[in-house]
Amino acid sequence: MALIVQKYGGTSVKDADRIKAVARRVVKTHEQGNEVVAVVSAMAGETDRLIKLAQQVSPSPNQRELDAMLTTGEQVSVALLAIAIEALGHQAKSFLAHQVQIVTDSAFSRARILKINKEKIFDYVRERKIAVVAGFQGIDEEGNLTTLGRGGSDTTAVALAAALNASVCEIYTDVDGVYTTDPRICSRARKLGKISYDEMLELASMGAKVLHIRSVAFAKKYHVPLCVRSSFTDEAGTWVVDVEDIMEKTPVTGVVHNPKEALLALSDMPQEQSITTEIFKALATSRILVDMIVQSPTPKTSLEISFTVPLGDFEQAKNVISPIVKKYGGKMSIDTEVSKVAVIGTGLRDDPQMAARIFETLSDEGIPILAVSTSEIKIVCLIPAKYSELAVRALHEDFERDKLLPEDVRNNNK
Amino acid sequence: MALIVQKYGGTSVKDADRIKAVARRVVKTHEQGNEVVAVVSAMAGETDRLIKLAQQVSPSPNQRELDAMLTTGEQVSVALLAIAIEALGHQAKSFLAHQVQIVTDSAFSRARILKINKEKIFDYVRERKIAVVAGFQGIDEEGNLTTLGRGGSDTTAVALAAALNASVCEIYTDVDGVYTTDPRICSRARKLGKISYDEMLELASMGAKVLHIRSVAFAKKYHVPLCVRSSFTDEAGTWVVDVEDIMEKTPVTGVVHNPKEALLALSDMPQEQSITTEIFKALATSRILVDMIVQSPTPKTSLEISFTVPLGDFEQAKNVISPIVKKYGGKMSIDTEVSKVAVIGTGLRDDPQMAARIFETLSDEGIPILAVSTSEIKIVCLIPAKYSELAVRALHEDFERDKLLPEDVRNNNK
Repeated sequence: MALIVQKYGGTSVKDADRIKAVARRVVKTHEQGNEVVAVVSAMAGETDRLIKLAQQVSPSPNQRELDAMLTTGEQVSVALLAIAIEALGHQAKSFLAHQVQIVTDSAFSRARILKINKEKIFDYVRERKIAVVAGFQGIDEEGNLTTLGRGGSDTTAVALAAALNASVCEIYTDVDGVYTTDPRICSRARKLGKISYDEMLELASMGAKVLHIRSVAFAKKYHVPLCVRSSFTDEAGTWVVDVEDIMEKTPVTGVVHNPKEALLALSDMPQEQSITTEIFKALATSRILVDMIVQSPTPKTSLEISFTVPLGDFEQAKNVISPIVKKYGGKMSIDTEVSKVAVIGTGLRDDPQMAARIFETLSDEGIPILAVSTSEIKIVCLIPAKYSELAVRALHEDFERDKLLPEDVRNNNK
Repeated sequence: MALIVQKYGGTSVKDADRIKAVARRVVKTHEQGNEVVAVVSAMAGETDRLIKLAQQVSPSPNQRELDAMLTTGEQVSVALLAIAIEALGHQAKSFLAHQVQIVTDSAFSRARILKINKEKIFDYVRERKIAVVAGFQGIDEEGNLTTLGRGGSDTTAVALAAALNASVCEIYTDVDGVYTTDPRICSRARKLGKISYDEMLELASMGAKVLHIRSVAFAKKYHVPLCVRSSFTDEAGTWVVDVEDIMEKTPVTGVVHNPKEALLALSDMPQEQSITTEIFKALATSRILVDMIVQSPTPKTSLEISFTVPLGDFEQAKNVISPIVKKYGGKMSIDTEVSKVAVIGTGLRDDPQMAARIFETLSDEGIPILAVSTSEIKIVCLIPAKYSELAVRALHEDFERDKLLPEDVRNNNK
């Protein structure tokens, strides 16, 4: 008998029929002799509906109150799932953050879990009953309701799995696993049997929405085996595990892209470190995430620096930077038509030829590279956005042909 | 400076614009130097939407889970009102049942308030901030969410007003007060300046929806002055107070009717008390509210008994009674086309002529009286439903002509 945490996202519980289907899956797992804790998101669209309602009342709603409102989405879906499970003849009970005691800090809208009182849930599932826990929500030390930010239900599930020492944390979603690349772009994309936490983190940071980045970091820290699966099929999904648990290591695990980037290039300013500091401090104060910073080597007479920001933050970044550039008599050029293409793989660190190979493949397709950044397990190229999908396809095809991508390990589950 | 509890019903907060209007009213009261605690219902239609959703999942949803769902309606509206008040430049905070500690028993869907921890609210309003409290909801000793039943927000408001020793509990609704009769039936209906708790209780028991019956009983017990007002106008409303606080006592306070009744008449059964007991025990077990019981005097040879039930419970009552009547060889006749017409007034007890006068007025209009029941401050006649509005108009006109109804005391507020 194992204790299994199952997390169901918004599309999995978007209406009464889907909720009943989730109930059947939970009950099936339970009837196989497992103890089950289900973690549920709000019904798809509900969070957006509530935010819109708040904005009709005030353009900048108070964060504490907004969080109190948003937690109702999960409160409704846990109750509905408990009702649906009972209708199948099993005992179930919904647990809200203040009932479990999922204690967070007081950073409304992006709270972090500080501790979970596992006893109540433990006692409940040990009586062979099914616990249904609200994702996304917490309670701070003063009893205020908090939320963990978008995708926070994944984090609730992983944190619960860690606290309860669960055998596995299954993340049910509307895709059936993690792919070597986007199947909508490349028909030869294959579902991965396993992926390491680090690789999954890199994928999430590139904008892959399959898992909330904080939940992956949490799972890595506490060695919680994750399994990403579809709530609409019975197919095996993708396991996210410690790198040691992956037998067959290939250089490349996946090719991903993020076309929602903007490039800002600053030039003709005095070559002073203090100016660079001023720029990035200003961006940090505005909470703008900066990436792919390229600074020309210092021997040059003037400061030349470029970096990317998410396209959504671009206008704000421009407003923050403009006065500084002006003050030092510099120039700013902007390109909103850029895309990041990334090759990710734990094997990259062992193969010094990979970077050259990537550049060659892109070059063969006539794709200019605007900037490059690398980490231990990732090589990212910034390219003109119009080449984004072509680049993904070319790289994926190249790795696939030479068997650099992992074999389909669909039946290779733990 | 006074502490004022204001309760706003579902139609008063049904959309963003209405919520902003409520915020302006709350702020105005606050700026007049009062401490304000606002109690809010769910946005109109929300509770019904949630119940429908639950019934899509299960025809008989678990009551604990249904309550957990239903409390979200108020959770959203309190947050929205706090946001709206903040947008007007005042400090406000929403309080849910588990945050205030509004402790109830565990009778889900019809819980009763056991105690309220007033300290948190007290401390907050004393800092010149506005507390917004969720109506309708409670929390039991084990931390389960509960609801107080339909109209329960009135009870929350009155209970808070009692706990906080408030100067007044204002009930804002979509009507501007309590009338001598239904203005839709009788054009000469007049708004009452004051009404006693007992009279209001009788009105509520006759189906008047302006105040939740339990809230009136609560207000009476703790001598909380209630004021029923419209949230759409600035007009004075109707005060509900101790009878001693009403200077001018008139025999009649109002004329009301409830056409949603059914009459069951049983006959030809053995004249035995045990049979009567069996019948009413069966009805009580099914939670059917029985009224206007008329039993023929015992010297008769066979048992003859009749009573009314709410029209909505009539089918169930019939099913419960039929086997008993059959067992004793009796007969049952049913009339679903009956209406109760009631004359209510604290002055009735002092005037022995009133009953005769009522019968005469109805008789003059050719209206047959099927049954009569009286209490200290109420005389109810059961009549054929088709005469219901005529009876109300005739009685009201008669009392009005002879100045038996109170003068318009609109400007006679406390």
